[in-house]
Amino acid sequence: MNICILPAGAWGTALAIHLSRNGHSVTLVPHTLEEAMDMGSCRENKRFFPGHPLPSDLQIGFEIKPALMEADVCILACPSKFLRSVCQNVRSQLGEAKSLKLFITICKGLEEGTNDIPSTILEKELPGYFHGVLSGPTFASQVAEGQPSALVLATNASDELKLALQEAISGENLRVYTSTDMVGVELGGCLKNVYAIASGMCDGLGLRDNSRAALLTRALHEMVRVGVALGGSIETFYGLTGFGDLVLTCNGEESRNRTFGELYAKGESIKSLIEEKQMTVEGYRTSHCFHHICVEKGIDAPILEQIYRILYEGQTAGEAIRALMSRELKSEH
Amino acid sequence: MNICILPAGAWGTALAIHLSRNGHSVTLVPHTLEEAMDMGSCRENKRFFPGHPLPSDLQIGFEIKPALMEADVCILACPSKFLRSVCQNVRSQLGEAKSLKLFITICKGLEEGTNDIPSTILEKELPGYFHGVLSGPTFASQVAEGQPSALVLATNASDELKLALQEAISGENLRVYTSTDMVGVELGGCLKNVYAIASGMCDGLGLRDNSRAALLTRALHEMVRVGVALGGSIETFYGLTGFGDLVLTCNGEESRNRTFGELYAKGESIKSLIEEKQMTVEGYRTSHCFHHICVEKGIDAPILEQIYRILYEGQTAGEAIRALMSRELKSEH
Repeated sequence: MNICILPAGAWGTALAIHLSRNGHSVTLVPHTLEEAMDMGSCRENKRFFPGHPLPSDLQIGFEIKPALMEADVCILACPSKFLRSVCQNVRSQLGEAKSLKLFITICKGLEEGTNDIPSTILEKELPGYFHGVLSGPTFASQVAEGQPSALVLATNASDELKLALQEAISGENLRVYTSTDMVGVELGGCLKNVYAIASGMCDGLGLRDNSRAALLTRALHEMVRVGVALGGSIETFYGLTGFGDLVLTCNGEESRNRTFGELYAKGESIKSLIEEKQMTVEGYRTSHCFHHICVEKGIDAPILEQIYRILYEGQTAGEAIRALMSRELKSEH
Repeated sequence: MNICILPAGAWGTALAIHLSRNGHSVTLVPHTLEEAMDMGSCRENKRFFPGHPLPSDLQIGFEIKPALMEADVCILACPSKFLRSVCQNVRSQLGEAKSLKLFITICKGLEEGTNDIPSTILEKELPGYFHGVLSGPTFASQVAEGQPSALVLATNASDELKLALQEAISGENLRVYTSTDMVGVELGGCLKNVYAIASGMCDGLGLRDNSRAALLTRALHEMVRVGVALGGSIETFYGLTGFGDLVLTCNGEESRNRTFGELYAKGESIKSLIEEKQMTVEGYRTSHCFHHICVEKGIDAPILEQIYRILYEGQTAGEAIRALMSRELKSEH
């Protein structure tokens, strides 16, 4: 299969390495010409994914247009806040892309302002193409290293194309499950990034396993309630892209959202973390989106509400914990 | 409330400390007179729960009979393999226990030979009393230290008694949710101990976050399938005593089942771990029980099957991983 991936962030680069190792013709197109030249000569993505050599077969693209021209599938690997502009840029360069049928996103955030999930953006900005999302509990570095991992591919593509892509991505150490619930898969990824911030805050406050397990359990309940209210399927949230990703991000050391929550609870400012350190923290803006969605639609989401109050209204994390622990006693369900 | 707890293992002692702090009249009855004398003089359970001083109000009982005589509720805090004999012993000493109405278990294992869950044993051995189970994602030491934690109390007691006990156990840092699904709560606890061994094996093999998240997600699916087939309610397995406890045990450093799996995968023998080091590893024998139950009832449980093959049939953990990773590709649900 001929696959184009753009731009060259950590996860996009890891997928490019994996797919190239799987024997596919892969072109990775970095955001700038400078990055492309650097990666082409060093055979490493020093800025976003250092320490992982690029396979010799992996092609570095200097421009989007020729890469799209040969591709069967294009993976859009930017953070969600750039997705619309990347789609618009891609659309303007699609002229001679004759075999391209399917666009796949791998970001996990809502678009601020519109509150759109990625597939809604693709539907609007790249009409006439199939689209889909590849998501699940995977740290990029571990996929690049060939650690056993599992992902979900949700798409509206034809069965033939879907199964071909499932087969293309799967390998000895990567299992890909298919799904038709794009909305649920995307919402699960977006929500877990917000709960990962909460889990990091627990760590920052010195809370331990018992507290985190209780938080994650109630977060999963809430994820299901919010996600189903917004159109996802309940079983999706209990799967790899809900439960699995929640467990990964809330425990793993490599999660930027968890780390952001931890550092914030320890006293660092949002400005220092996001602006100065240039952390990509999808959960930060996404918590703002979900707050407004839940208020507007009357969805009960006490954990999301507390995270919003902490990040946007100056409440302390300790106050949030006390508010959650002192809710009325009740039955579990 | 007047509460008797016996014997004095780690979790029983932690609950005794917590309940005593909550203002209840608590009597903790160790297994032997020697232990009781030691705990009475040192005010610490040096053998099973060192480092946690006993509150001055907590009474140490030298005999079961007088402790039962004053109790409203009795918590049976032994491992599952001793539960039947402890129940029989208690039953023979119930003569003057006038206010005792409810027995609660806190163990998480099936009885070898009968494959009975704890509540089935209580029903048979202590007829005429209400019974229940207190379970959830809690390491004993963290409850004793007052870390925010959550538990589920499932019981067939009257609403009045159930709510009184919920209120009695709950506190500033411990939330207790009620449930009527004793079977589901008990099965969740038993199953997660087997999956915790699997998670430990992953650690022992050097597998990392991605692999563990994938394992846990598929383990949760399997837990639901097995648990529902055996009479539990689906939502229980997605709650604190299923999902929550799975997440806790499979990640936490304090889990004996996880540690057992890790050391086994690194080459230690079962004999050395269980007999010589006297580890209480509920999941070991419970995996044997579940294997026979699943075969007999025709329940598809590939992870349980692989754990059984490793522990009882000499398969290597690496072979099990390969068997699980190479199953036919499919949709997630």
